[in-house]
Amino acid sequence: MAYEEFTLIGRNAVIEAYRSGKTIDKLYILDGSQDGPIKTILREAKKQNTIVKFVSRERLDTMSDHGKHQGVVAFAAAMEYAQIDDLFAKAEERGEDPFFILCDEIEDPHNLGAIIRTANLAGAHGVIIPKRRAAGLTGTVAKVSAGALHYTPVARVTNLGKTIDELKKRGMWFACADMDGEVMYRQNLTGPIGLVIGNEGSGVSRLVREKCDYIVSIPMKGDIDSLNASVAAGVLAFEIVRQRMHQ
Amino acid sequence: MAYEEFTLIGRNAVIEAYRSGKTIDKLYILDGSQDGPIKTILREAKKQNTIVKFVSRERLDTMSDHGKHQGVVAFAAAMEYAQIDDLFAKAEERGEDPFFILCDEIEDPHNLGAIIRTANLAGAHGVIIPKRRAAGLTGTVAKVSAGALHYTPVARVTNLGKTIDELKKRGMWFACADMDGEVMYRQNLTGPIGLVIGNEGSGVSRLVREKCDYIVSIPMKGDIDSLNASVAAGVLAFEIVRQRMHQ
Repeated sequence: MAYEEFTLIGRNAVIEAYRSGKTIDKLYILDGSQDGPIKTILREAKKQNTIVKFVSRERLDTMSDHGKHQGVVAFAAAMEYAQIDDLFAKAEERGEDPFFILCDEIEDPHNLGAIIRTANLAGAHGVIIPKRRAAGLTGTVAKVSAGALHYTPVARVTNLGKTIDELKKRGMWFACADMDGEVMYRQNLTGPIGLVIGNEGSGVSRLVREKCDYIVSIPMKGDIDSLNASVAAGVLAFEIVRQRMHQ
Repeated sequence: MAYEEFTLIGRNAVIEAYRSGKTIDKLYILDGSQDGPIKTILREAKKQNTIVKFVSRERLDTMSDHGKHQGVVAFAAAMEYAQIDDLFAKAEERGEDPFFILCDEIEDPHNLGAIIRTANLAGAHGVIIPKRRAAGLTGTVAKVSAGALHYTPVARVTNLGKTIDELKKRGMWFACADMDGEVMYRQNLTGPIGLVIGNEGSGVSRLVREKCDYIVSIPMKGDIDSLNASVAAGVLAFEIVRQRMHQ
C-alpha cells in the first residue's frame, strides 16, 4: 500500500484526526471490537459519514505494516474534498459552461490521479467521485495528479445517480462512453456537460448509464476490448475541448 | 520490481535462456567479474546485442530479491520483438497508410503498456521503442497492455533518430507533441505517419524533435504542465483517427 503519511494507526491517532477536523476516507475496525474508545471512534465516524469496515486482525496487521494498530486503522484524505457548489463557482469565475468529470467507481488510484490531471488540463471545472467502491484522494492519487489536485476541486458524493439528477435540474447534460453509442465526433457535446467515466472492468453502471442524455463511443479499430480508463477519459475530455473550440 | 517470471537469476539460468534463443532485454553483471562462465555470458550478450550493465552486489541482491544470483541477473522480454517490416506488413495487409507510434524513452512500464493498448485500439500498425533508457517488454507491460501485445507488433531499435531517417525514405512523415506546436486540429495528420511520444519528464529529445516534420500541440487550458504520457498518446492517436475518418 502506498498511502504512507495518510495512514492513521491506533486509537489515539484516529480520534485526534477526527477531532482536528481531518477528512477520513475509510475506517477499518477489528471485527468484534466494542469497548469505549472504539465506540467514541464510531460516533465520530457516524458524524462525518465515514465508510466503516470491520475486518480481521491479519488485515489490520498488513495495513499498518505490523504497527501497533490496537484494532483501528484509518486512511485520511490527502486533500480536502470540495462541495459541488465549488465546481459551479469555478465555471462561473471563468465565464464558461460547467464541465465536470464524474468517475463511476474508478478503483485504481493511478487512474483517478491521471483523470484529475487530465481534468485540469482539459479545463474541466472539477471531478466528482462516489464514496463507495472507488478510490478516494489518497497520497498516490495526489502524486499521480502531478499537482492538479491543488487546482481542480474534487467532490465526493454518496450516490452518483442522485447527484446526476440534481445537476440536471441545474441545467447540466450527461454523457457516458459505451461501445454501442453514437461516435463522439457526431454528437454535440458543447454546453454544460458532465462526462461520466466508467469502472476499469465493468464500465459505467446500469443505473448511471440510464440517467445519461448521450451515450457516445470512441471509434475502436483494434483487436482488444477497451482503452485504459484514464486514456479513455483523456480522449473524451479533449473531444469536448475540440468541440468547444470550434462551436 | 514486478518483472516476476521474466527475471533470470544466476549463471545457468541466463546461459540457458540465451541458448534457447530467448530475447534478453537487459543483463546485469557484478562489477569486476571476469571468470569463464561470465565471459561465456558476455559473449552471448554481444551476439544478441543485449544492453549490459556492471553493477554492485547490493543492486543484484535487490534485483534478485536476495536470491543466489552468482553475480548475474537478466530480464527476459515477455514477448518477442518485431521487425520494422512486420509493422509495414500489417499496414499493407489492411490496405491502410502506415501509422506507427514511436516511444522516445518512455520509462514507466505502465505507460508503455497503456500506449501499446491505445495503439491497438486506434488502429496503429505497431509501436517502436529504443533499446536504451526505456522500458522494454516486461511482464508488467504485457499485463497493462490488456492483451494488445499479442496483436500489435513492437519493434526495438538501437537509435530512434536513425530509424526515423530510414522510415522517411520509405515515405513516412513524423509528428511529435510540444507546447509551442501548431494546435493538432489545424495540422493535417492524414497519410503515412509516425507519432512520437516523449519521455515522462523531459518530453521529446532534441535530436528526435528536429527530425519531426510537424510539431503539434494539445490545447492546454489548465494550471499544470502536461498530461500523463499515455493519456497524451491517446489524445494524439485519436486525433489521427478522427482526421482519417473525415478525410
